[in-house]
Amino acid sequence: MTYNPKNPKFINRDRFVLSNGHGCALQYIMLHLAGYDVSMDDLKQFRQLNSKTPGHPEVNDTPGIEVTTGPLGQGFDPGISNAVGLAAAEAHFAATFNRPGYELFNNHTYVILGDGCLQEGVSAEAISLAGHWKLGKLIALYDDNKITIDGSTEVSFTEDVIKRFESYGWQTIVVDDGDNDFASIEKAIEEAKLCTDKPTLIKVKTTIGYGSLMQGEEKVHGSPLSDDDIKQVKEKFGFDPKEKYVVPQEVQDFYKVRAEQGADAEEAWNALFAKYRAEFPEEASEIERRFSGKLPEGWEKALPSFTSADPPVATRKLSEGVLTALSDVIPELLGGSADLTGSNLTRWQKAVDFQHPSTNLGDYSGRYFRYGVREHGMFAIMNGLAAFGGNIPFGGTFLNFLTYGWGAARLSALSHLRVIYVMTHDSIGLGEDGPTHQPIETLVLTRATPNMLTFRPADGNEVSGTYLAAIEDHHRPSVIALSRQNLPQLEGSSIEAVRRGAYVLQDPEEAKLILVATGSEVSLAVDAAKKLAAEGTPTRVVSMPCSELYDEQPEEYKNSVLSPGIPIVSIEALGVTGWERYSHAQVGMRSFGASAPIKDLYKKFDITVDATVAKSKKVIAYYEKAGYVPKVGLEF
Amino acid sequence: MTYNPKNPKFINRDRFVLSNGHGCALQYIMLHLAGYDVSMDDLKQFRQLNSKTPGHPEVNDTPGIEVTTGPLGQGFDPGISNAVGLAAAEAHFAATFNRPGYELFNNHTYVILGDGCLQEGVSAEAISLAGHWKLGKLIALYDDNKITIDGSTEVSFTEDVIKRFESYGWQTIVVDDGDNDFASIEKAIEEAKLCTDKPTLIKVKTTIGYGSLMQGEEKVHGSPLSDDDIKQVKEKFGFDPKEKYVVPQEVQDFYKVRAEQGADAEEAWNALFAKYRAEFPEEASEIERRFSGKLPEGWEKALPSFTSADPPVATRKLSEGVLTALSDVIPELLGGSADLTGSNLTRWQKAVDFQHPSTNLGDYSGRYFRYGVREHGMFAIMNGLAAFGGNIPFGGTFLNFLTYGWGAARLSALSHLRVIYVMTHDSIGLGEDGPTHQPIETLVLTRATPNMLTFRPADGNEVSGTYLAAIEDHHRPSVIALSRQNLPQLEGSSIEAVRRGAYVLQDPEEAKLILVATGSEVSLAVDAAKKLAAEGTPTRVVSMPCSELYDEQPEEYKNSVLSPGIPIVSIEALGVTGWERYSHAQVGMRSFGASAPIKDLYKKFDITVDATVAKSKKVIAYYEKAGYVPKVGLEF
Repeated sequence: MTYNPKNPKFINRDRFVLSNGHGCALQYIMLHLAGYDVSMDDLKQFRQLNSKTPGHPEVNDTPGIEVTTGPLGQGFDPGISNAVGLAAAEAHFAATFNRPGYELFNNHTYVILGDGCLQEGVSAEAISLAGHWKLGKLIALYDDNKITIDGSTEVSFTEDVIKRFESYGWQTIVVDDGDNDFASIEKAIEEAKLCTDKPTLIKVKTTIGYGSLMQGEEKVHGSPLSDDDIKQVKEKFGFDPKEKYVVPQEVQDFYKVRAEQGADAEEAWNALFAKYRAEFPEEASEIERRFSGKLPEGWEKALPSFTSADPPVATRKLSEGVLTALSDVIPELLGGSADLTGSNLTRWQKAVDFQHPSTNLGDYSGRYFRYGVREHGMFAIMNGLAAFGGNIPFGGTFLNFLTYGWGAARLSALSHLRVIYVMTHDSIGLGEDGPTHQPIETLVLTRATPNMLTFRPADGNEVSGTYLAAIEDHHRPSVIALSRQNLPQLEGSSIEAVRRGAYVLQDPEEAKLILVATGSEVSLAVDAAKKLAAEGTPTRVVSMPCSELYDEQPEEYKNSVLSPGIPIVSIEALGVTGWERYSHAQVGMRSFGASAPIKDLYKKFDITVDATVAKSKKVIAYYEKAGYVPKVGLEF
Repeated sequence: MTYNPKNPKFINRDRFVLSNGHGCALQYIMLHLAGYDVSMDDLKQFRQLNSKTPGHPEVNDTPGIEVTTGPLGQGFDPGISNAVGLAAAEAHFAATFNRPGYELFNNHTYVILGDGCLQEGVSAEAISLAGHWKLGKLIALYDDNKITIDGSTEVSFTEDVIKRFESYGWQTIVVDDGDNDFASIEKAIEEAKLCTDKPTLIKVKTTIGYGSLMQGEEKVHGSPLSDDDIKQVKEKFGFDPKEKYVVPQEVQDFYKVRAEQGADAEEAWNALFAKYRAEFPEEASEIERRFSGKLPEGWEKALPSFTSADPPVATRKLSEGVLTALSDVIPELLGGSADLTGSNLTRWQKAVDFQHPSTNLGDYSGRYFRYGVREHGMFAIMNGLAAFGGNIPFGGTFLNFLTYGWGAARLSALSHLRVIYVMTHDSIGLGEDGPTHQPIETLVLTRATPNMLTFRPADGNEVSGTYLAAIEDHHRPSVIALSRQNLPQLEGSSIEAVRRGAYVLQDPEEAKLILVATGSEVSLAVDAAKKLAAEGTPTRVVSMPCSELYDEQPEEYKNSVLSPGIPIVSIEALGVTGWERYSHAQVGMRSFGASAPIKDLYKKFDITVDATVAKSKKVIAYYEKAGYVPKVGLEF
């Protein structure tokens, strides 16, 4: 592998992903040997608080870790799926920036994966796409040890893995004795490198816990070896059993040479890049800009703005307008959809598909990814695209299908990756497709997830503001919930205000009630406020496109929006759970939805102007009688 | 197919699953033709409120629908995965109850699936298991029309499907002209029936929208045909274009004969069953009991009970004890785990594995399913097992991996299926595995989901009570969150009380504070209450193993538990979102967890006796100053 331990972020380094992340002790040791900033003391702190060596590899904790993997064999391992994204990113940068004589981007992506990884459906999705995309620089080593936690793979995993990978269009190679025959492993990797239009699976037959007295048994998967066993293992492999935490000099020397080679490789690359800059100054500065994470100067000026005179439009359609506008000014935006392009409206007008050129459907410089009906694989691949650096991936599906890929979405948040989830058809407002498609519980999930932003914009300005806030936030993923149905452009809405999470849209003097709503229900709040005002209750309307950003505002600002002393009623056509933090009473869903035209559904589920007015009156009466209005969102 | 439209629940009927549920108009029409209680008027109400013909097939809306499928090609289709569960259930009942001369159970399970279904990872998981289990009575027809919503499958789906299914151990058959060559389809099905130790995939090459002017195009997938097009289609196939909603007499006659054959088949089965009952009275009444949904008399007496003198035990271990106790008295309990048997402790002592007998690892009468590392497939298969009737499936993984199969778990709730999710390692309390394994947002998701119960028992009695409540609840799935770590047996805990969702565990006179907690934090609440009492604040401790059941209690009971006028502090080592409904202040997680020993983590994240006491004092002081304590959980 080409890597420089002194600069773990060397752009053209080979990437390595340990898909079966529970084996991370090995990875930490390798990073230590290779010369990364992982000391012997760090190794001793394995799985301790605040260490560089946590229980599973995490991208922000340890230099040299490319992506957070981990969920053991037992959980799911997005590692291989992330690797598909990393390999796709390399292909994209190579196609976009390489020039004759300047192969700036040509790194390989290596993965080690286990039986457990291959049983998970997300891997099947990503592996199929890797074959479809012909990602020749992706090389996966399959540790075929025939053991999972429940024992022999015979109990549940008897498929023909080689044949399966061939069905996906991969090259396959088998190494029969992975315990001892290192030459064959090396040869297989060389062979894999020669195959440039197919990813390669190298099946390496191994013995789990090789050398231990428990070798070949599942027990050796998670349990520490006994002292006796450690002693005999060390003796067997020529180490002094009395010594611990020691690296023999010859091993140190070996890795020192490798580290120097890596430093040389980066130096050579830097020299090549300097020449490239002379010949292609624009491209060179674009590469630098993209990997530095700096956004193009003035990009936000491209965001469309609206007045209330503009016609009603579905926020998914407004999102398409924003993406079209931004596609020109932010070339690192890489889009896609899980086979719902025409519904999610994620493809901007001039987009080129990311495809192998032989397909005549696009090429690797294309920025639109056809993920097929593979939500989980899509999200994990987006994580890989983001982790490569220099990309802002976004991908679409229906909001209700966000949870089909939650394992990966959660890792976007945990890994601090700016990945944008464009989730359309965001409530019962989608109508006839019915409750299998209507999210109820989805947004409380995203809002309850640390380090993730949830947006539900109400109109054109808020859609623009949503993308402004999401793209500016370099270290968090954003979930954008968008309507299927048309929504009016609101008087008082604002692009900038979205950054504050919630803001006062309409404010009569001496408001006696606050209606707070999101997305498609903000206009309903406006109508209800009008009716309430006519009936003698001046009502403030608050739009809350992002409750997480609101939570981060200074107390003073928050008090100016959801002001203490005034009863608050929230309106959102999704489950009401979680709204108690922002309102005294909730208009929303308390059951699954149903299949019917939209207007029938809002009526059936009491999400109407009349229901809001009636509930508001009850709330006001209750607190008048009580003689107080408790403050919402108290933190102690 | 063998079916009796007059009794859609005929036990030995063939099951049919439309995996690509968006084609349900066809399914409704077929049900109408076949003589089910789906009238022409019902067909006219397609996708209207309260109709029998919703936008996607739902098991509780329409007679003859076996499982809720639906999420379009775009979403995910668990249909094929449900079908694997249905087929496994048939195999299990056949092995358990058939006797020489009495083939009571021998139905086939038919599935129609599309390209989209095959792209989804959950299908890959279930299909691999179906091959491993050699489910010979499972027959899948793959509608290979080369089109998904995004256009040609060439853009994202170029794998060799036949080869992939062969790698999974399926028989495969190809029908080249599915548009016209019905004889070959019929022949393929006959051939599939002959193969008894492999499931069969019949790839039927078709033209989407065959006969329409838009045939072969993705547009015909979702858009209604134009009037002109309808006219020419009808003419092409020999119908009168002027007629609508008409079934020709010869078609009616054809299906009438089929319906009579179905009624005869059931009659013959009933006669066989009568003879069986004479020879095997116990087995016969067991079959009747299981399909009637009645639980065995007195089963709940097997539930273990505990006193506070009993030693501390992890609730996952207590769950193992309950499952072992119940395995004898509830034979319809079918267990399993996604390769975490030794961690989830889901396998009772004398369990036999569900395996094909040729493996020598078990047989089809076995009740323990080795799902491998396939959470989503496991959940969808559990739905199929439950939908077959006569089974109570449960399955284990780590709580954090519940969301890897959320698509299926959500359908358990939407379909009213009693499926039990045994989710261990339920908080940061799992320790060193770190934040990739530590759930934060998971329980607010399950609690926000309609028609689903979330349990987090605190000790032995509550674990028994949890299973009592979960098993008694015939029409809801339950998620049971269990600790990895040992927990003390609590003074005052109760099996029965779990049915009420929350109850007073300890109640001093004139309590000035209420601590409400779940699971592993209830003992922390007890300790904090002791300290608070010593410092002059008599404190009630409430255990809330299931907030959803608590919500369903009468107001009077609720007021006796979380009594108005007393400040309430909640403690749960998961995300605090959602707790505002039950408490004035929250002790819990506001970030992801970390990798470290358990005691370091509780301290780092301020989930301790001291932090609880300190927060409680602040809350009391705040409301003393305010002069009121607002009621929690107000509904208007």
